[in-house]
Amino acid sequence: MPQTIPTPGGPLRIVGTRGPNIDAVERVTGRAKYTGDIDLPGMLVARVLRSPHAHARIASIDTTRAEALPGVRAVVTHRDSPKVMIWGHRQYALNDHVRFAGEAVAALAAVDAETADRALRLIDVKYEVLPFVLDPEKALETGAPQLFPDGNLEGPPRILSRGDVEQGLKSADRVIERVYHCPTMWSGSMEPRACIAQWDGDYLTVWASSQSPFRVHGSLAAMFNLPDSNVRIIASYVGGGFGTKSAPHTDEALAAMLARRARLPVKLQYSREEEILDSNTRFQTRMYVRIGVNKDMTLQALHVKAYINQGAYHTRLGGLGNQATHIYKIPHVKTEQYRVHTNIPNTGPTRGVGDPQETFGVESAIDEIANEMGWDPMEFRLTNIKRNGDPIARGGSGTEDGRLITQVLDRCLQEGATRIGWTRRNVMSGGGSSGPKARGIGVACTERGGGGGLAGASVKVNLDGSAHVFYASTDIGTGSRTTLAMIASEVLGIPLAKFRTTAGDTEVAPYDNGSHGNRTLQGTGRAVEAAARDCLQQILAAAGPMLNNATPADLEIRDSIVRVKAEPARNVSLEMVMRRRGRSVIGDGGTTASQTATDVERTSAAHFVEVEVDKETGKVRILRYVSAHDVGRPINVTIVENQIEGGTIQGLALTQGEEMRFDPRTGACLTGSFVDLKPPTALDFDPRVIEAVIVPNEGATGPFGGKGLGENPCHPGMAAVANAIYNALGIRLREVPFTRAKILGALAERSDANRTV
Amino acid sequence: MPQTIPTPGGPLRIVGTRGPNIDAVERVTGRAKYTGDIDLPGMLVARVLRSPHAHARIASIDTTRAEALPGVRAVVTHRDSPKVMIWGHRQYALNDHVRFAGEAVAALAAVDAETADRALRLIDVKYEVLPFVLDPEKALETGAPQLFPDGNLEGPPRILSRGDVEQGLKSADRVIERVYHCPTMWSGSMEPRACIAQWDGDYLTVWASSQSPFRVHGSLAAMFNLPDSNVRIIASYVGGGFGTKSAPHTDEALAAMLARRARLPVKLQYSREEEILDSNTRFQTRMYVRIGVNKDMTLQALHVKAYINQGAYHTRLGGLGNQATHIYKIPHVKTEQYRVHTNIPNTGPTRGVGDPQETFGVESAIDEIANEMGWDPMEFRLTNIKRNGDPIARGGSGTEDGRLITQVLDRCLQEGATRIGWTRRNVMSGGGSSGPKARGIGVACTERGGGGGLAGASVKVNLDGSAHVFYASTDIGTGSRTTLAMIASEVLGIPLAKFRTTAGDTEVAPYDNGSHGNRTLQGTGRAVEAAARDCLQQILAAAGPMLNNATPADLEIRDSIVRVKAEPARNVSLEMVMRRRGRSVIGDGGTTASQTATDVERTSAAHFVEVEVDKETGKVRILRYVSAHDVGRPINVTIVENQIEGGTIQGLALTQGEEMRFDPRTGACLTGSFVDLKPPTALDFDPRVIEAVIVPNEGATGPFGGKGLGENPCHPGMAAVANAIYNALGIRLREVPFTRAKILGALAERSDANRTV
Repeated sequence: MPQTIPTPGGPLRIVGTRGPNIDAVERVTGRAKYTGDIDLPGMLVARVLRSPHAHARIASIDTTRAEALPGVRAVVTHRDSPKVMIWGHRQYALNDHVRFAGEAVAALAAVDAETADRALRLIDVKYEVLPFVLDPEKALETGAPQLFPDGNLEGPPRILSRGDVEQGLKSADRVIERVYHCPTMWSGSMEPRACIAQWDGDYLTVWASSQSPFRVHGSLAAMFNLPDSNVRIIASYVGGGFGTKSAPHTDEALAAMLARRARLPVKLQYSREEEILDSNTRFQTRMYVRIGVNKDMTLQALHVKAYINQGAYHTRLGGLGNQATHIYKIPHVKTEQYRVHTNIPNTGPTRGVGDPQETFGVESAIDEIANEMGWDPMEFRLTNIKRNGDPIARGGSGTEDGRLITQVLDRCLQEGATRIGWTRRNVMSGGGSSGPKARGIGVACTERGGGGGLAGASVKVNLDGSAHVFYASTDIGTGSRTTLAMIASEVLGIPLAKFRTTAGDTEVAPYDNGSHGNRTLQGTGRAVEAAARDCLQQILAAAGPMLNNATPADLEIRDSIVRVKAEPARNVSLEMVMRRRGRSVIGDGGTTASQTATDVERTSAAHFVEVEVDKETGKVRILRYVSAHDVGRPINVTIVENQIEGGTIQGLALTQGEEMRFDPRTGACLTGSFVDLKPPTALDFDPRVIEAVIVPNEGATGPFGGKGLGENPCHPGMAAVANAIYNALGIRLREVPFTRAKILGALAERSDANRTV
Repeated sequence: MPQTIPTPGGPLRIVGTRGPNIDAVERVTGRAKYTGDIDLPGMLVARVLRSPHAHARIASIDTTRAEALPGVRAVVTHRDSPKVMIWGHRQYALNDHVRFAGEAVAALAAVDAETADRALRLIDVKYEVLPFVLDPEKALETGAPQLFPDGNLEGPPRILSRGDVEQGLKSADRVIERVYHCPTMWSGSMEPRACIAQWDGDYLTVWASSQSPFRVHGSLAAMFNLPDSNVRIIASYVGGGFGTKSAPHTDEALAAMLARRARLPVKLQYSREEEILDSNTRFQTRMYVRIGVNKDMTLQALHVKAYINQGAYHTRLGGLGNQATHIYKIPHVKTEQYRVHTNIPNTGPTRGVGDPQETFGVESAIDEIANEMGWDPMEFRLTNIKRNGDPIARGGSGTEDGRLITQVLDRCLQEGATRIGWTRRNVMSGGGSSGPKARGIGVACTERGGGGGLAGASVKVNLDGSAHVFYASTDIGTGSRTTLAMIASEVLGIPLAKFRTTAGDTEVAPYDNGSHGNRTLQGTGRAVEAAARDCLQQILAAAGPMLNNATPADLEIRDSIVRVKAEPARNVSLEMVMRRRGRSVIGDGGTTASQTATDVERTSAAHFVEVEVDKETGKVRILRYVSAHDVGRPINVTIVENQIEGGTIQGLALTQGEEMRFDPRTGACLTGSFVDLKPPTALDFDPRVIEAVIVPNEGATGPFGGKGLGENPCHPGMAAVANAIYNALGIRLREVPFTRAKILGALAERSDANRTV
């Protein structure tokens, strides 16, 4: 449900408008070449042999029968694996110690898929099976199976502490203590992981389905000990990533090892089951939350102790974002994060990283204590939230650095409340309906930074005045090709239709950290803006002599016409300037290390949901969902709304399915298909009930005041729905997903409790 | 025969050294992918149907039978040809009026070569045969067959006139008048023309065997009415070009037309015969030369009237370079060039363009008049040549513009004379030997400019300090990848081994005019130097804060270490600077339109040859050949010597073979194979008898004082050998090639003349 957005500030021409993605036709017609679509002459097909055991040592691997099969061109095992960790963390491409059921133990490449599948069965592996552990808290107990020589804890606990939380809780008028739990959840994408590796002597090209080509570049350069200039990663089109493709993975390394041995290009494309099993999914989080308030409705203290199940290895990214320190004024806060290895598959950052889980815990607890105190949860939040002009807390550390908040969470809350009809909610906790169906309304807030990591881009203006944006971040479906081209179009005064983009190529574009963490707009966007301004200066300098020696400051470009600002009739076409200049203009832009450290732009949101719960079946229906976001100034309104809608649905998906379950007897994953995982379909969440609301604001540092927002819409869903279900029925769900069984169980429990009282 | 070259000037580290090409291993192992080596999935094979008639109108073409053949995917005729000329000149991709035997009349693409060949025979063409003309002077006669509605003359005659040539000849003490003739000659390359076209929607990628990817880019963008950003030309490796690949050609257009129709990639690779027939070979030139001297050994007047046989269409490049105005002080000069269309295949620039032909005429005439006057041809030349500090004549116009000559032709002459042993020559004209074999020594001078056309390049320094040079000119075997990387290496203080190069890609590199006309070093080389200096400034600026805030001017990079010049122990590794800066450095560089107009650098040479002629067989053996060149400062001595040796051999080849002959009754080419053309083999010219001499000098504007030189070594061979044969035998050959029959004929004629006297 779109709405018109005012675009404050200068006389912008394209920024702030609506429009389809510039690559929409390519994508929907199948013309866009995703990695899996690429076919190289002589290309081999790779397959991976995976461990049936959750924890084992490899006693021996005999590959001779597989190698002897006609059509097999290369087989690799841990003996062939370079002894350099994938992206410097814990795991070789192939290991002699397998830590989850499904971990790669060997890979091979053959002339076709049938031969490769047949050869897999000819590899003979002898395992020494070891005891395993699946639960993060159990993994920390004495005597638990150990995954690594230094124990199961990944690094020291991450502690954020402000004030004195124990003292704060002690002195608070009321304290509640709760446990919230999110299981391991699959947040993967439609496109399973795919890559193609090709060696040309000691030059390695990898087509990868990656959100961060330069991270893959760095990982493979280190692994094969190659200079940066001998590696090229190409990720033109990526069929979704949601964080699971933001870190280098074993697949790129395996394909490169096989291609090097076979001296032929190798494609490794995961099956759906492999993609579920080995794709860095969302980590399980058990949160012990204590929260204390005073009777004057002020929040006094918050303690979150979180056990994070990293799985066998995890990427080096992730954790909870301590959002509460950014959202609320709380004198006493402590967050303890224990990141624990267990014998389940790798986890990693997925949309929002740990923030959806944290939002579920903290925003549920906020709701619980407000209800216990008899307060309106909206009023309680409005009393305690930080407002524009309050000091900003730094990401991670939660401490202030003197910068002030530019977000407008208060306006998000108020706007959302109006649209959902907050006054319609049940004021009695325990639900207002005695019929077979109960309705309730819930709210949850969230907040996140964006823009970390170095960014770079270049812009080229051709002799005919057409232009090209090159960047090594990717468009994972977020519309960044379009948004970035619009930024360059705005700066250069060249219509968008004259732009072409090359995304995700580490050879032709400068270093960029990738597309993740709300950073493509804030980081790469600023780089594109700088590169375009570099072009603009060069073009205006060349145009000066053609316009009575006007200085660049006197000139501007509009619709590909260079003109004297004060006298628009004195002008010359951009094409003529370029033809006379005689060669392309290239602009280079980027963010500096110091900029990325300080210019993280924070953005907030409030989500409101009205649910209807069928008390007889436990089915939860979303009647209406309002996602009110501060996104700074939207560059492309359509794209921003799409991001809000898509993220909202992805957050809602976690309330009903996508739980990864493991067999407690074997450690094997029981949910290796869509049928088992139950990701939502178009029938589950009607996008027409979701209203994406852009609350007018302007960021401090992003291009044209824009802010990255891809992560946030995914955060509040679980908490908002839990709070709405409580408002409908008076039952409190503290474990996602909110299955019918859990809802019916909770209703039965309450009914039993009522009967016994 | 290499020699050591002093490298004057600054403390250079790599410029001026010797070394192999950086892509030598790729090229000799077959790893380098030439266009013909590229294979795309689903790629079709194209074949071209060619006219059997030298001149005809196409009355009708029926392609239905060919189209019906299973496996044929596209057929195109003149009806499908865009009505935009190839590179804006005279010729569509396919025409309804064919002007030479072998001109394309239709093209088709099929799933394999056999089907394509079979389908060609199913195309039914009805021709209306027209009268044809092969000789340029006959083509200008009244009543000659007309190729174009506005006649057979291509544009107005090119007239250069200085002083009053008729008055100068009249007042001279002695005048001779001679006719010199060079036939149409094949100067093509080992790699026949090849291209692959692929459409992705309205985005066209063409892999082309081209010396000038951006010219092909411009031609195809115009033909298909695409913005520059929708066309990408890639010419990574080119197997020789020698000018024949410096202009866009019909093949790229045909492949693009077929690929668009078939919606599949199409490869069009010429056979050897097609390559000979349709590759813009060296144009026939008939020169009427009058030259006048005074008794004091001064050159008074030179008149050259040249008829140039452009063939059916020609490219828009070419003509004679008026070298005499650059080499000699002559008060009265006139050159008239008539560029004439005839019904032979297209011609175009080939190594030296018209200069080898012109050198043959002028340097033979200089020798003839010196001999007639009884002067030593060396002394005569030394008396009349321009010297360092004399005013330079502008290319083409021959007029002075105030700049002074930096070339050292006098030193080339003296150094070459010493090495060949000039004093050993026969002072008696008519030859000094009465035995069956006669020896003689000859000399010829030449001169040429280089650097025209806009140039651009970019340089990228990666996070690990490795680097990458991007340029859209090509390496056609001249070693430009190596030379350009060495320039960047010298500027940046990064070892050559850390460089990678991307050549010939119009998408990733800025506009560059291409690799031809002695310009890659002078043009692209300056662009690379500027791009590298741009990188250097950025790196030094980033390093300053790591070295007590030193300013860039205080710093330098040596062997990838950034150090304080005055205090080299204060330093930091380039890699650390780059890692802390956190993103790649991109530098952009180029020449401006005004630079390219004025900074054409001129370079000269003197070639000396000693021949032995067998009077009984007419066989000419090269005993020794000295090529003394002013090349400014050589960037890579090995590459410069290779260029001199290769060019010298190519010039010598024209003395013995490579004549294209046409059947006077049909206009058909009679020399469509190597057997007929007789290009030299390793047995013909022993490279060990060729001595490449680099005469120390330094150019005024080239990078590190270098000058482009690829064309020049090919100029003097014909004149030097003709002059040596005269010195050996007293016979004067004024028509190349100097076949045994011509030599025996001339000897017989002289013998007859002696008998009748």
